[in-house]
Amino acid sequence: MKLLEDKIRNEGIVLPHNVLKVDGFLNHQVDPELMFEIGKEFARLFKDKDITKVLTVESSGIAPAVMAGLALNVPVVFARKHKSLTLTDDLFTAEVYSYTKQTTNHISISKRFLSSQDRVLLVDDFLANGQAISGLLDIADAAGIDVEGVGIVIEKTFQRGSQVVRDRGIQLESLARIKALTDDGQIEFEK
Amino acid sequence: MKLLEDKIRNEGIVLPHNVLKVDGFLNHQVDPELMFEIGKEFARLFKDKDITKVLTVESSGIAPAVMAGLALNVPVVFARKHKSLTLTDDLFTAEVYSYTKQTTNHISISKRFLSSQDRVLLVDDFLANGQAISGLLDIADAAGIDVEGVGIVIEKTFQRGSQVVRDRGIQLESLARIKALTDDGQIEFEK
Repeated sequence: MKLLEDKIRNEGIVLPHNVLKVDGFLNHQVDPELMFEIGKEFARLFKDKDITKVLTVESSGIAPAVMAGLALNVPVVFARKHKSLTLTDDLFTAEVYSYTKQTTNHISISKRFLSSQDRVLLVDDFLANGQAISGLLDIADAAGIDVEGVGIVIEKTFQRGSQVVRDRGIQLESLARIKALTDDGQIEFEK
Repeated sequence: MKLLEDKIRNEGIVLPHNVLKVDGFLNHQVDPELMFEIGKEFARLFKDKDITKVLTVESSGIAPAVMAGLALNVPVVFARKHKSLTLTDDLFTAEVYSYTKQTTNHISISKRFLSSQDRVLLVDDFLANGQAISGLLDIADAAGIDVEGVGIVIEKTFQRGSQVVRDRGIQLESLARIKALTDDGQIEFEK
C-alpha cells in the first residue's frame, strides 16, 4: 500500500534491535485518514471471506481494526491485556510473550462476544514474532471459530511471525512488508 | 444522541455500584458504524473551535477519538497508561486514580506530539468522577495547550466529573447523559 509505505519512509524511525518507531501515525499519535484507507484496503482484500467479526488486541490494533470493521460493516472486539488473570470463567484467554518488554501478558475476550458461527479477521498493527497473533489464534481455537484472514499494517518479513499464520493455511495480508532495518537507519521494503 | 441512547437502553447492563456495562458496543466489542456517527457528532458540536488535535486515553477512548479525528481531519493522540513511570524526560505525564480498580495509574504523552500552538479536543468513552479527563487536562497544562472542548460518549451526570470541566470554562458535550442507574436495572437519561 503505497500511501502507507510513503508514510513509513517519511516518518518511521529505525532504532536499535530492529525496532521501527511509527508512533507519529500508528501507535501513539494516529493518522485517522490513513487508518480509514487501511480499513478499506483490508475490506477489499478479504471481501470474499464473509467476515462476521474483526478481532484485535488493545491498544495499537484498535484504530486499524475499527476502520476495517467499519468498511466490512461488522463488529470489532479488542482483546484486553492483563498482567495476570484470576477469574476466567467467562473469558477466553491466551498467553502473549513480549520480546520487546520481555514479559508475559495474558489477553482475554469475553465469551459473550465470540460464537462458533463467527468467521473472523484478525487485525494488528505489527507482525514481527507473531506473539499477539498467536494469542488471538489460541483464543479463536478455544472458541471453535474459523479464522478467515489476518490483516497486518506493518510486517517485518525478516522475523518469523508470518510462519505462524501460513502454517495454518490462513490468508495473510500485510499492507507494508519490511525486509530489513539497517544500522544506518534505512528501511528496506519487500518488492 | 438518539442512536446512542437507544443502544444504551437496549444493550446496556446495570451492575452494582453504579456501573453501566456497555462492553457490547463501546469498550470491548465496538460498533464501528456507531463510532463513526459519534465522531461526526463531535465534529459538528466543536466545528467552530478550530481543533488541531484530538487527545484521548487508551484503550476505550481510542475508537470514538479516532472517528472524531477522521471527521475533524486532524491527528489523534492517545495517552498511554503505566503502572509507574521512571524515565519521563520526553513525556508529559499525569496521575489518574481509578475508583473502579482503586489504583493509581500514570498516563503519558510524548512531548513530540503536543505543541503550544495546538487547540485540542479531549475525547473519552465515559465521564464519571472525571479522573481521566483531569489527567488529560493536567497534561495539556504542562504542554501549555488550549483545551477547546471535551467530548464524552456517556456521562454519568450524578457523579462529579462534569464539574472538573465546567470549572475551567471548557465546552463539554456528552452524547448520552445518564442521571440515574436504579437498583432494579433501569437507566434514566437526562431530558
